[in-house]
Amino acid sequence: SNREMEYKLNEAKKQRKEAKLIKQLEKQKQQDAAERAELEQSPTYTVSVALPGSVLDNAQSPELRTYLAGQIARACVVFSIDEIIVFDEQGEDVKSVEGEFKGVGKKGHACIQLARILQYLECPQYLRKWFFPKHPDLQYAGLLNPLDSPHHMRIDEESKYREGIVLDRTPKQGKGSLVNCGMRKEVRIDKQLQSGLRVTVQLSKTQSQESKLCKGVVVAPHVPRTEGGLYWGYTVRLASCLSSVFTESPYKEGYDLTIGTSERGSNMDQSTLSPFKHLLVVFGGLQGLEASVDADQNLDVSDPSVLFDLYLNTCPDQGSRTIRTEEAILISMAGLRQKISAAFSGVSNV
Amino acid sequence: SNREMEYKLNEAKKQRKEAKLIKQLEKQKQQDAAERAELEQSPTYTVSVALPGSVLDNAQSPELRTYLAGQIARACVVFSIDEIIVFDEQGEDVKSVEGEFKGVGKKGHACIQLARILQYLECPQYLRKWFFPKHPDLQYAGLLNPLDSPHHMRIDEESKYREGIVLDRTPKQGKGSLVNCGMRKEVRIDKQLQSGLRVTVQLSKTQSQESKLCKGVVVAPHVPRTEGGLYWGYTVRLASCLSSVFTESPYKEGYDLTIGTSERGSNMDQSTLSPFKHLLVVFGGLQGLEASVDADQNLDVSDPSVLFDLYLNTCPDQGSRTIRTEEAILISMAGLRQKISAAFSGVSNV
Ligand SMILES: C[S@@+](CC[C@H](N)C(=O)[O-])C[C@H]1O[C@@H](n2cnc3c(N)ncnc32)[C@H](O)[C@@H]1O
Ligand SMILES: C[S@@+](CC[C@H](N)C(=O)[O-])C[C@H]1O[C@@H](n2cnc3c(N)ncnc32)[C@H](O)[C@@H]1O
Repeated sequence: SNREMEYKLNEAKKQRKEAKLIKQLEKQKQQDAAERAELEQSPTYTVSVALPGSVLDNAQSPELRTYLAGQIARACVVFSIDEIIVFDEQGEDVKSVEGEFKGVGKKGHACIQLARILQYLECPQYLRKWFFPKHPDLQYAGLLNPLDSPHHMRIDEESKYREGIVLDRTPKQGKGSLVNCGMRKEVRIDKQLQSGLRVTVQLSKTQSQESKLCKGVVVAPHVPRTEGGLYWGYTVRLASCLSSVFTESPYKEGYDLTIGTSERGSNMDQSTLSPFKHLLVVFGGLQGLEASVDADQNLDVSDPSVLFDLYLNTCPDQGSRTIRTEEAILISMAGLRQKISAAFSGVSNV
Repeated sequence: SNREMEYKLNEAKKQRKEAKLIKQLEKQKQQDAAERAELEQSPTYTVSVALPGSVLDNAQSPELRTYLAGQIARACVVFSIDEIIVFDEQGEDVKSVEGEFKGVGKKGHACIQLARILQYLECPQYLRKWFFPKHPDLQYAGLLNPLDSPHHMRIDEESKYREGIVLDRTPKQGKGSLVNCGMRKEVRIDKQLQSGLRVTVQLSKTQSQESKLCKGVVVAPHVPRTEGGLYWGYTVRLASCLSSVFTESPYKEGYDLTIGTSERGSNMDQSTLSPFKHLLVVFGGLQGLEASVDADQNLDVSDPSVLFDLYLNTCPDQGSRTIRTEEAILISMAGLRQKISAAFSGVSNV
């Protein structure tokens, strides 16, 4: 009958729909699994390093002051640090890298100068002329060792991602802006953005050889790291005192694991790390973290160890009476590296 | 009877003799145990670090060349290194720190200059004017950071041991030489030694306040380390090529554990160290250990890894494409420190 026929057709339609839904769900499941696997491969945790700008005042000449800033930048890049926080332990109360310049002296002005040199070094060479006009803080920048990080691309290097600057040319109606990514060709992106902006570009897989332009889309700066598994440089933050290091975190949830470093800390060999989202490792200056705590009017304590989840001696039995901050970063992060990877691999890490 | 009496006396004598022998043996046993315990407390192993002098040619100015040498010295002191070997990977065939000086240039003359700065820094400040006359290699020595090692004593510091120089004054008949140990008083030692000699002095426990002199005895340079448990500086050795690093060891038995370092080595996290007497850790220069092997006419291999017991990547997942040698020393020794102490404590060290 007609009704019977109609019923059968309806049933068949239902089943096809169901099958389609199941297929879709399975596909979704597979995608989820793939994404999760990728995330597990390229961990999405972050590591921040904080130190007082005053360490620069420990250098013996303007050249060595610059070189010291470069040592700190390189130490952080070697260990793929996401954020460097320069804090003021002398109550100079600096809030930005703008601000009046008082000359490249041996002392003073340390936080701003350190932050500026760190930012300068992080910027790919081909973008520096745009973002870093001549400045006395950068007078000896020629002495700095390059960071050689993955986002510092040479002109003919092939890469899925590149850092670029939006060019000052009005794009045609309906077309995206042009970006200089340090390649032989300019890149047409998917959006119209303000000129002078620094952007992270994901280059299209297929590029036409004949075209005078490359094609790409703008992505969030964390994408090369979180999706591509590539270290993509650090951000720099100024903090007006030690407590602001903790309270002004750029991560919504703040830091969920904090480590203070000191020769008076407990032996790191006997400690394990638990998995974390946002790790913060804090170093002191010439007088240690005690001096940073003393200088901070927001802090009532005198023993720095109470501020941290862990307070670690990262170089037990040191052969020198003092380890300099720039050395302590390399030594501490080398020791913590193993413990961090152990925390995420589930293997015991003592 | 007489014979009986004689027999008894003889027996008694025998027994006394035996008892004495047993007592002696027991005492000997106790001494042995005490010695062994002491040795276990202050390990008597040594750690040597080797690197090519050419690393200095990687510096951008004579000041930074000097500073780089200082970084290497400090890295070695922080990790209580016993011996630093500077090898020639350019066939310059230098055999001693004497030799013609060609001016403080940007390039060349690197092995001798590195060795000289390392020796200068190791020498306690109060002895430098005697052992290091003005020399162009030391022109920028004022920029060097102090090593702050335990044998660099301040004038009023109390210490069981001190480094000194035998003074050029003929001691009275039957008395020992006078030594300048950087204290307010000079030290009368137990021996007559040639003036100008550098000596390690163990100061007597009781010193008379009234006497114009202190009293002490000369000991072997290793004694503060092996008996006092104090890091007492490093020796410096020049090697004319990479293979001489191995073959000209100052230790009779040679090195019984050798480690080469390279980003192409195996992941150090997966390796353990076995206990050793004399560990050697070798670093490459700008072009890695491959270049050092290539330059050595005594070596037929091209893969450096075959020269070593272990060939280790000490910084897996490095965020910079290259780690500089002076950074690699701090990073590698920080990672090895844990494994060394695990090797001697018997605890698993993966
Ligand atoms: C020159 S040191 C500070 C020395 C200061 N006199 C003190 O006693 O803390 C500078 C910084 O290096 C780090 N540091 C030095 N030795 C360390 C060690 N053994 N373990 C961990 N961090 C260390 C700390 O962050 C310290 O604040
Ligand atoms: C500038 S690097 C040599 C780079 C050279 N292009 C190469 O591929 O070997 C200088 C030295 O630092 C040490 N080094 C650098 N990275 C290392 C790593 N990941 N693990 C162990 N040692 C490393 C090695 O001793 C190396 O010879």
